[in-house]
Parts: sequence; C-alpha cells; structure tokens
Amino acid sequence: MRSFLGRDILSLKHFERHEYMRIFQVAEELEPHARDRRNGDLLAHKTLVTAFYQPSTRTRLSTEAAMHRLGGHVVGFADPRMTRAGDFYQESIKDTVLMLEYYGDVIAMRHFQQGAPHEAAEWASVPVINCGDGWGEHPTQVLTDLFTIWRERYTLDGLHFLLVGDMRMRTMHSIGYAMSRFGISASFVAPPEMSLTEEFKQELRDLNLRFDEPETAEEVLADADVIYMEPVVQADYTRSRVEDGEEKGLTPPAYRVTREMLRDKAKTDAIVLHSLPRMDELPTDVDDTRHARYWYEAYNGVVVRMALLALVLGAVE
Amino acid sequence: MRSFLGRDILSLKHFERHEYMRIFQVAEELEPHARDRRNGDLLAHKTLVTAFYQPSTRTRLSTEAAMHRLGGHVVGFADPRMTRAGDFYQESIKDTVLMLEYYGDVIAMRHFQQGAPHEAAEWASVPVINCGDGWGEHPTQVLTDLFTIWRERYTLDGLHFLLVGDMRMRTMHSIGYAMSRFGISASFVAPPEMSLTEEFKQELRDLNLRFDEPETAEEVLADADVIYMEPVVQADYTRSRVEDGEEKGLTPPAYRVTREMLRDKAKTDAIVLHSLPRMDELPTDVDDTRHARYWYEAYNGVVVRMALLALVLGAVE
Amino acid sequence: MRSFLGRDILSLKHFERHEYMRIFQVAEELEPHARDRRNGDLLAHKTLVTAFYQPSTRTRLSTEAAMHRLGGHVVGFADPRMTRAGDFYQESIKDTVLMLEYYGDVIAMRHFQQGAPHEAAEWASVPVINCGDGWGEHPTQVLTDLFTIWRERYTLDGLHFLLVGDMRMRTMHSIGYAMSRFGISASFVAPPEMSLTEEFKQELRDLNLRFDEPETAEEVLADADVIYMEPVVQADYTRSRVEDGEEKGLTPPAYRVTREMLRDKAKTDAIVLHSLPRMDELPTDVDDTRHARYWYEAYNGVVVRMALLALVLGAVE
Repeated sequence: MRSFLGRDILSLKHFERHEYMRIFQVAEELEPHARDRRNGDLLAHKTLVTAFYQPSTRTRLSTEAAMHRLGGHVVGFADPRMTRAGDFYQESIKDTVLMLEYYGDVIAMRHFQQGAPHEAAEWASVPVINCGDGWGEHPTQVLTDLFTIWRERYTLDGLHFLLVGDMRMRTMHSIGYAMSRFGISASFVAPPEMSLTEEFKQELRDLNLRFDEPETAEEVLADADVIYMEPVVQADYTRSRVEDGEEKGLTPPAYRVTREMLRDKAKTDAIVLHSLPRMDELPTDVDDTRHARYWYEAYNGVVVRMALLALVLGAVE
Repeated sequence: MRSFLGRDILSLKHFERHEYMRIFQVAEELEPHARDRRNGDLLAHKTLVTAFYQPSTRTRLSTEAAMHRLGGHVVGFADPRMTRAGDFYQESIKDTVLMLEYYGDVIAMRHFQQGAPHEAAEWASVPVINCGDGWGEHPTQVLTDLFTIWRERYTLDGLHFLLVGDMRMRTMHSIGYAMSRFGISASFVAPPEMSLTEEFKQELRDLNLRFDEPETAEEVLADADVIYMEPVVQADYTRSRVEDGEEKGLTPPAYRVTREMLRDKAKTDAIVLHSLPRMDELPTDVDDTRHARYWYEAYNGVVVRMALLALVLGAVE
Repeated sequence: MRSFLGRDILSLKHFERHEYMRIFQVAEELEPHARDRRNGDLLAHKTLVTAFYQPSTRTRLSTEAAMHRLGGHVVGFADPRMTRAGDFYQESIKDTVLMLEYYGDVIAMRHFQQGAPHEAAEWASVPVINCGDGWGEHPTQVLTDLFTIWRERYTLDGLHFLLVGDMRMRTMHSIGYAMSRFGISASFVAPPEMSLTEEFKQELRDLNLRFDEPETAEEVLADADVIYMEPVVQADYTRSRVEDGEEKGLTPPAYRVTREMLRDKAKTDAIVLHSLPRMDELPTDVDDTRHARYWYEAYNGVVVRMALLALVLGAVE
C-alpha cells in the first residue's frame, strides 16, 4: 500500500478502496480525542499552514480544530484581503507556496481557481491538502461524508445514493469518483442549469458508475440509502431578497426533502447528509427524525481531518 | 454551591454572592501565570472556540490570551465577513452552534443580537460564555470590573458607585444586577437620550438597588467609591468629524471626569474604571493620578477570564 | 555586551557588529527546529502578541511561524478592521499598548505610521519588535537578508551591494545602517522620484558609507556581491491596469535584473535577494540560476525571527 506520509490530498479520482479504509481506520483510532474532548499530543511538534483564498467556515475551522485536537499549531490566513493589498490575487502560486512551505509542515488550501492546490503541490516540499478548489474537488468533505456513512454500516458497497442540489459543485466531482470505487449507484436530481456536465457524466460512465437523473427527489426517495443534499438557492441571493423586504426565496419542491417525504417514502435506515449551511431545501423539522446525520457529519469533519493530518505528517503509519 | 463545571456564563442576573467570590478566589489563585508571564498547562488539552459576530478588541484578545496563559488552544472567527458570504448572518444559531461545539470545549460568543448566546447555550453541549450580546449583557467585563474593585478592598459591600456614560450599554445591565447583590448604591449620570430605560429601572428597584440619576458627574463625585465610566460620544462620529478637518467632538462637561474634579472632590481611595477605548470623557492626565485603575482593569480582564475558563472546563473545582 | 533580554528591536541605527553576530549565532543554533520540521518547546510558556495595523503576509506569518516553531502561543490581530470600528485608528498608542502588554510577553507591531513601534516601546513593559513602520525601518527583514548573505560567506565585510528599487522603502533605511557597520559599499539604482532622500544620504555619508547612484542596474552589475531588489511598480497599480484589460505594467529596463544580465555580467558567486512579492523587475527565469537566494531568504525569515524572539524573551542568553 502506498504510504500516506508526505502525500498530497488533492483529488479522490485515483483513490483506492484500501486508501479510503485506511483513513477510516485511523479516524476511528483517533476519534477518542474528539469524543472525550481532550486534545492529544500526536502533532504537538507540527504546524499546519492554512491558506484560504476563499471564505470558508466549516472546512477551515474543522481543519484547524483537528490540528488542535492533536496538539498541533496553526498559522495562516483566512482571507486574502488581510494580506498586502492584492498580492495574493496577483502573486503566482509558485512564489506563494515557496514561502508558505517554510511556515509549517502541511498546507491546507482553499482557492477560487480550480487546480490551484495541485499547482501548489508541484512546488511545495510539504503535503498540500485541497480544501476546495473552484469548481474542482472537495476531497476532505467527501471523505467526511463517506466516513459518516461507513460508521453506520461498516460498508459502502452497493448502496444507492440520492444526490440533490447543484451538481456543478466541487463536492459532486469528489463523490462521483468515490461512488464508483464502491459500486454505489446514484440518482442525481438538479435543476437543468445546475445539472452534471456532459463531460463529467462521460467520465462517470467510463468509471462504470450506474446513475440516472430523475426530475424530482421525491420520485426516487424510496430507493435511497443515502440522501446527499446541497442547496440550489444561493444564500447571497436569498439574503438580498430578504433585505429588500421581499419574501425569502424558496427552493423548488423538486429539490427539497421534507419530513413528510421521509416519513412516507424513505427506507427506515436511510440517512440524510448535508454539508451545511442550508437554505430551505432541508427544513429544520427533519432535524429530529431518525434520518438526520448532518450534525454527526460536522463532528466527523474534525475526526476525518485528524486522520488525514496524522497520516500525511507520518504520526501514524 | 452549584458547580461551575459545564456551566454557561450568560448573565449576571441570577449570580449569587458566593459565585462571585468563587470566581474571585480562582482568579487570585491563577493570577501568577499572568503576573510571572509564564503560561501554565492547566488547559493544555482544551480548545476555546471564539465566535465573534461583532468586532471586538479587548474582549476577544483577553479571552484568547487567558486561554493561552493556561496553555490552551484557540480556534474561531473574529469577523463574520471572513466566513462564507452571508452565511453567518443568515444561518440559524442552532445550525451554527451544532457545528461550533465540535471544534472545541467552550464557546466564547459576541453577537449583535441580544439573547443570541442564550440561544446558543440551549443547543450547545459545551459551555457558552457571553462576550457581549447587543444591548443585553456583558458579564465577563463586569466580573473583571468587580474583581478589580475587590482586590482593592476585599469587599464590595455598601460601596457607592458613580456610573457615567451611555446607560443603554450592555455593561450597565450586568453591573446593575451585580450591584444589587452587594448592597451597592448607585448614581447614574447620562444624557437624557442615553439614560436607563424605565423597564430596567423598575427591574433594579425590584432588586432593591438604591440609586439616583443626578444631572452631572461632578455634583455626586464626592460620594463615590468607584467611578465607572463609558463614553457618550461615539468613536466613529468623532473620527468622521476629524476627517472633515473639523475639531474633535467634545463630550459635554456633565459626563466627563477630570483630574481637577478628582483632586478637588474625590475620596482619597476612590478609583476610576473604564473599559476603554475612551474618547475625551476621561482625559489622559487622569492616568497618573492615584485614582486610575483602568490599566489594572485590562490586566484583570485576562485574569478573570482565566478563572472563568478554568471553572467551566472543570480544571479547578 | 548589552543583553537582548527584554530589549526592543526597533531600528538597526545603533546596532553593533557583535549584536548582529549574536543574532546570527542564535539563528544557527535554533535552525534545526525549522530544518527538521519539528517544533521545539523553548518558548512553550510564552505568548507573542501580533499587532498588525497594516496588511502583511510574509512578515506576520514568518513571525508567527517562528513563535510556533519554538512551541509558543500567538494572539493578536492581522487587520485593524477586525477590531471595534475605527478604535485602533483613533485610540492612542499608549492606550492600546497598555492593553496589549497584558495579552502576552512580546509585541510584534506593524504600523502605517513611522515611529509608532518606538512609541509603543516607551509604554510597554514587554519587548516590542518593529515589523515595519511606515517609511521608517524594517529591521527584522534586513536581519534576515544579512543572515542569508552571512551563511554564504560567514562574513559581510567589504562586500559590494547593488540595491535596485524604491529607495524610499523602510527596508532601505535599515539596510543603509547595517551596511555602514560592515564596511559594505553600495550602488543605489532607482527612478528619480523613488531615490534616496537628501537627508538620508547625508546620514549615510556621516556613517562613512561609500555609495554611488548609477542610472541602471546593468552598468554596475559586474561589481555586485549582493543584488538587493525591490519593485518599482506597485502591485495595485499593475493589477488595476490588468483588470481594465490592458497589458501588464512593465518595470523600466534600468530597474530590472534578468537571467541574461546575470549570465553575461554577474560575479559567479553573486546572489540575488528579494523580499517578495515581486512584479516583473525579477523575471521568474532567474529562479533556477545559481544566483537566486530569495526562497532561502524566506526560510531564513523564520529562522532569524526565532532567534530574535528567543533572545528578547531570555530563552537563550
């Protein structure tokens, strides 16, 4: 098995089954630090560099929290505006990374440009973790999602996923690759202007992923083991409408999953995941159903990132 | 006595005398870390989550500094603009807190909305510390103020406070509750448009607080053991006038406390507190009088927050 | 020798040769923490306060990274906008510093106003490190630059420096003082509107620095042991031109140093330094020449700041 030591986590495209499993195992081993709320010292002598060129809440904070849970140090920036005016927009990835690599031992990067973390990894002598690159991928989020499912069943094989929301988002690319490794079948439900690109669909077909594209979530809900949601309404858009005194923009019914739908149609053990924040595609009365796992998903976001940091830094083998 | 372990610090409304005393004792016990400038390791295995929805300097930095003085870790945000655009303004407190609680072991929250930390505490499985909520309360500031006074006299009973400034501020609510517990009497001096609300005055009367509302600070200065100041002129307003090339906006004399007034009228052992920053309500030539305690108050801001963090995290009993 | 314990690092004006040497020695002693990517614990019980009133990337992050490499804690602000609106612009340095000094054990300050760190140092009971003050000085950057040269030759005496760029920048003041201590001679090349002030030139003459001001870098390149570069084109200006769809603003040839010039004219062991970020005054094809040392300079930025922090905090003698 290829070691994780020093390895970049950029994409799930070439991730093997045993690599997913190794991450999940280490996540389970390290979880007690999070569960018992007691930081360890596995990474006490290491520093994480966060380079977030785009705003982020959950990804940045859970990555930093993971580093702290293992006793480590964190340095970096959460907002390129905080740096010398315009420099980070202007400066090449190479010039930036050949500076950042000296500030710590692993770089977690979010970038508005697809492929930026890959370019960073070409130059950096330390591992680079892709925390979301434009329309590219979001591997740590999807590893979190899969770990959340895996801890329910201790297998991912042969499940059926219902994916609802904006299919152009980077998480969809990462989860597409992941599903193909585990023989998962998928139903993608999205507004036409947010559906999977033809190019990516061809890529998924080449990976032998079985999938369809129904028009509504409801019509295929009964088949789903996992309901994987993303908003189709932008927070900004909605907020601006609210500010104008108008009503809150509503998600069209085809892309919502409600308590009633879950009660009437979902499998008993179907689970709902959502990376949050949510708009009204997932009403809050779903929260106390047996299906909701999105809070647990947030928790696992720390646990899985602990595993990734420990692995690429060689703190576990 | 009700234990502090796992407890939220939201309001001083129901704080008992012995609870104030317990905090002061622990603050005195932990103070050597701050005085000797040597971080301890009491909270080395804990992480503080800072959730500041409103700008803050002293409260945020002193809370973080307190955590570091006890060897702990800090993660969070100082500015909601740094997070995904608009999310934090839009996302419910519940959704946010059910994420933040996984990132650490105690949440320190400042929010522009009164009651937001209380709502956070309803959802969080970790203690929430209110670091200022809109027009609500500011308990950690007032605990700092009281500790500063207590260290002078080792009692708070029967003192007379002269409070000058904007009485609508959240600190005024917290200190109102606190004064009523110690038989402190109060003179509130504020411009009419900034005076105590009728509702809050009734609440203070119900708590048996003896108080009056003179028109000027000077007329009651001689009675004061503690002179507790806040600006009545807004920094922003003043700054914009300066920028236009006009003269600096002056605080009306009734709401200023000067060196001359202190020399001529104040009790020998009267002390002046101010949470800072100040405008011209407190001229800088007061700084080297025997009465100034606002620098010491800044220092105690770290010491008292060390005590609060250690108590709610169970590091001291 | 005057001890570094508790000392402010504000200016290189009165720095003695043996003081430079002491810093370089300690930097070499501490370097293994950076090279081996393993944080030590020399400053585990100390907290660095960062007070950056102006945006910064390399200086802030390398100072923080240095603190983490020695196991220390960091608290502070990277952006005055994050603090209570306008306070930091308005509040006096005295009021601010008599707060900040309680939050940690050393203050690293960048300020838009020349002399601000000096004023801070007058009030602070902890050491203040000047991380750049307006048009004033930038001692930690220049100590980094000199250490980078020193590690090549283990001497600085009698070298010739070619300095190209905006001579009004604060680094130029600090390096001017430093060069005069080591009998270094200098050629300053800058556009007329960016040349050394008459006042500073007189100061350099009084310090017996031998220097000339040729019109182009190329004409004196052959004499240079060290080529010390700064942009003459502003990033912001250039970026705005790019945004308008126009071509990127080019640095005039007189203020550029190219691969061809280095190949044809430079001494074999001449080295190029640049504090970065760069515009087109230093083309990227210089990066893989034998002369480029600017990445190593970035690395040394952490190492030298480790030494400074350890020295002023008394962790090394």
